[in-house]
Amino acid sequence: MYPPTTPEPLSDHLTTQILNYQLTHGMHLKHITLNQPQPSHNITSSSSSYPISTSIFPNPFPRALFHHAHTLQPIYNELYARLSDSESWLYDAVIKPLLPVDPFARILWEMHLRMKSKRGGGYGSDISMGLFRSDYMLHVSGNGNSDQEEVEVEVGISLKENENAGLKLKQVEFNTIACAGGCHAKKVVDMHRYLTRTGVYDDIFSNADGEESRKSPITLSSLPTNENIKGLADSLATAHDIYGPVRSDLATKTGVLFIVQPDNFNVADELPIEYALWDRDVPVPTYRVEWGDDVLERTCLGGDRELLFYPHLQGEGSMPVEISVVYLRAGLEVHEYDAVGIECRVRLEQSRAVKCPSVLGHVLTFKKVQQALMGPGVLERFLDSEEKVLAIRDTFVGMYPMDGDSEEGNYARGLATDPETAWRYILKPSLEGGGHNIYGEDIPGFLLGMSSESEWGRYVLMERIRSPVVGNVLMSKMGVEESDVVSELGVFGLCIWKKGDILRNETVGWSLKTKFADVDEMSVVKGFGCFDTPLLV
Amino acid sequence: MYPPTTPEPLSDHLTTQILNYQLTHGMHLKHITLNQPQPSHNITSSSSSYPISTSIFPNPFPRALFHHAHTLQPIYNELYARLSDSESWLYDAVIKPLLPVDPFARILWEMHLRMKSKRGGGYGSDISMGLFRSDYMLHVSGNGNSDQEEVEVEVGISLKENENAGLKLKQVEFNTIACAGGCHAKKVVDMHRYLTRTGVYDDIFSNADGEESRKSPITLSSLPTNENIKGLADSLATAHDIYGPVRSDLATKTGVLFIVQPDNFNVADELPIEYALWDRDVPVPTYRVEWGDDVLERTCLGGDRELLFYPHLQGEGSMPVEISVVYLRAGLEVHEYDAVGIECRVRLEQSRAVKCPSVLGHVLTFKKVQQALMGPGVLERFLDSEEKVLAIRDTFVGMYPMDGDSEEGNYARGLATDPETAWRYILKPSLEGGGHNIYGEDIPGFLLGMSSESEWGRYVLMERIRSPVVGNVLMSKMGVEESDVVSELGVFGLCIWKKGDILRNETVGWSLKTKFADVDEMSVVKGFGCFDTPLLV
Repeated sequence: MYPPTTPEPLSDHLTTQILNYQLTHGMHLKHITLNQPQPSHNITSSSSSYPISTSIFPNPFPRALFHHAHTLQPIYNELYARLSDSESWLYDAVIKPLLPVDPFARILWEMHLRMKSKRGGGYGSDISMGLFRSDYMLHVSGNGNSDQEEVEVEVGISLKENENAGLKLKQVEFNTIACAGGCHAKKVVDMHRYLTRTGVYDDIFSNADGEESRKSPITLSSLPTNENIKGLADSLATAHDIYGPVRSDLATKTGVLFIVQPDNFNVADELPIEYALWDRDVPVPTYRVEWGDDVLERTCLGGDRELLFYPHLQGEGSMPVEISVVYLRAGLEVHEYDAVGIECRVRLEQSRAVKCPSVLGHVLTFKKVQQALMGPGVLERFLDSEEKVLAIRDTFVGMYPMDGDSEEGNYARGLATDPETAWRYILKPSLEGGGHNIYGEDIPGFLLGMSSESEWGRYVLMERIRSPVVGNVLMSKMGVEESDVVSELGVFGLCIWKKGDILRNETVGWSLKTKFADVDEMSVVKGFGCFDTPLLV
Repeated sequence: MYPPTTPEPLSDHLTTQILNYQLTHGMHLKHITLNQPQPSHNITSSSSSYPISTSIFPNPFPRALFHHAHTLQPIYNELYARLSDSESWLYDAVIKPLLPVDPFARILWEMHLRMKSKRGGGYGSDISMGLFRSDYMLHVSGNGNSDQEEVEVEVGISLKENENAGLKLKQVEFNTIACAGGCHAKKVVDMHRYLTRTGVYDDIFSNADGEESRKSPITLSSLPTNENIKGLADSLATAHDIYGPVRSDLATKTGVLFIVQPDNFNVADELPIEYALWDRDVPVPTYRVEWGDDVLERTCLGGDRELLFYPHLQGEGSMPVEISVVYLRAGLEVHEYDAVGIECRVRLEQSRAVKCPSVLGHVLTFKKVQQALMGPGVLERFLDSEEKVLAIRDTFVGMYPMDGDSEEGNYARGLATDPETAWRYILKPSLEGGGHNIYGEDIPGFLLGMSSESEWGRYVLMERIRSPVVGNVLMSKMGVEESDVVSELGVFGLCIWKKGDILRNETVGWSLKTKFADVDEMSVVKGFGCFDTPLLV
């Protein structure tokens, strides 16, 4: 049995070790009290924090599929770079169907049109950058796909490699903006590796009652190392180098600008990247500014569209920093796009700084893109080899549009409104960030409760991935709980391209998130899951 | 002016940067709620924490004296190693006068006698180890020492090296047990160096109103790097190696044991050393156990006096770890020595593990030792060169016994009870850890309030160090406050010796602590000061 039953005193001791490790490694989220002015001198309240959720045991994951996900990433990077260069496809396949029903799609597209127009002055840079994250779950292929089968078969992950042949990687989503979790993921991996090194898992296994094997399968060689912080920092440094030297006469240096959300509780997932940029042999000056007014007040465009940034501590008349790379960790949610938010985004886009991502790159995060990629010939159009096409297509599960015009859309509407079939699906809006999906049996009622059927078109209907469950113990601020769990592997990719010419294309990191099998959502910072380390089998 | 006046918005921005850095680097202390059983599943409450106090600006410190303190350390190490080998001197100079009046001295000495007796079975190891910390303050030498002068002259530290010629290092105390602060000190130095790298100090200086110079004196080359965590871990690893291979048939490996206080709020100053030991190319297995019952339950002595430790996660019948080095971060306060505490300490001493420190090493932390070292010929007896003697003696300020028998003691009693002279002195008991001293004008009343004059002998009377004040801004959970401050430099030393033969003698780290000039105590974790970085001038 994995993991073995752990008697309470041992479990408490391990919990303490984990809490201590989290405290001393900054694996904490901030408690943020909104709508209350924070007295600047009250340090205790403003720094109150709690540990990020984590699994107690690494979670079994097939080694071959872990590595396969890494090899898929450059193909996905290339695919999405090509998509963003193809405005006409984007418009036809994604924007046009969403414009009438999805306000966020409309806002982004209008910004795009404004940028292109004379009034907008055109995009400031022809270099595009993506720090993508492609998320996968393991999927039990085979008879589970049969329409006749009404009960989900529970399949586990075997600790023996050759018994996992029926498992495949299926893509949950592809994120193109503000991809988070990299820093937390790296630190949780370090923690599980530390715990392994100290022998606690060996002790727990050797201590287990009535186990067939008392030897722990958790060894250092079964836990892959994680270099996300370096990978993400190197990515930004690469784009910074590509930007080149200072152009503006006003500035003396170039630097990277993190655009972050106000009242950000998740700084621990951003700051380590900034620290790593400052800590390089040749430091990359890195600053952070809050989405909205802060951006508008602290930046302006130079004569040659340089994005000039005035750091917060500088006085009047000081020299600005010329921004080489704008890294968005904000602007991913529709509510951020009030008039100020729109001006903020436009200011950034107008500049010659490299945007991570640009507006067109951002649009690619819509779930509609995943669904559109399933269309006949689409992958073939954007990828240059049959091998790449097959590799990508193999990660797809069924996805359908929900419009009332197309044949496919009407078929999907039938599936989604019928309780006999709906349980197999997830209804996903195009919004980013989790917490907006409708699952299985809730779909028919949800759809029928909407004011107009035309709104259904905002959604895509996605086949549920049938993920194998394993046991684990998860630790969050709600407590320590043993349960069946499922995992999601995210792979971080860097792509930098210039109108069809791909300058950099790499896999730069990964994260593993695990949640209770009976919970639908996956968002660690919202409390729906935890960070984890794969136990490669 | 140093530091320049910082307008509130800038100060708030800098404060946020510091809080974020502290959060993400584990520079936090735990909130511990005593006498309440911690429900093991309530993660939030058991991990509540707050940032360690820190200065906002590095504090000026003469470069030559900073380096001089490092060269003094091996001499002090040697001196204290020799003292601990000289039981007769220790007894005559320290123990005999304290036995009638100091319960802690009595407890330690009785343990020593018990160890030596047939019943105690003798000390288990002839190797001694010290991880010492010698604390210094800067002292304004010259006319300030005159008896005629009644008002303290406020002297600052100049940013120009040649203007600090009147400053000397004077020793505050020499700590031989549970020397803390190393990990915090290192992280605060890293933080000030990070802030410097980002240019915030340059910005603040260039922003200052009406300053003569707007150029910041804070540069990376003026802030020494700090490798305390590596230095302390290397020290323990060295002793671990000297211990050699496993002797007991029961154990399969050797390891280091940290003895820590229960309900420890300061784990962030201990755990990084443990992590560093596990993280070496050849990991040094390291465990922690709580002082008292936990030690007695989890350890036993092997046939050849091996200290056998059973890790908390192991089951019945598992193999113990043979402890190579016992590192005490507990057992430094008299209240820890109830019957269980005494058995705990004796168990450790009886073992063949290297103790850091042994009971005789522990006794050397008594302030009485500092005072006794001032006696004629004492330094000459224990140090082998006139040069070493002069270097050490130069760090002494006047210190007197407070007994009623000796001429010196009666002279000191006169100084201490007369308000005209008492203000120049500090009355120090032999206790460790701060918070027990009586300062200046409070001394006469304190002494007269004691039930018997014979108790006065527990104290030594120490001349107050007249430390130059500078301005700084300190940040603690009480808030952010600008004030005159004074600093204390601690230097960590490693010494390993075997009956007169010194095996290792090194300087392994340092810490700088700064407090408000009008506060007497210095203890960061108790809220009386903060960690700091020297701005070498």
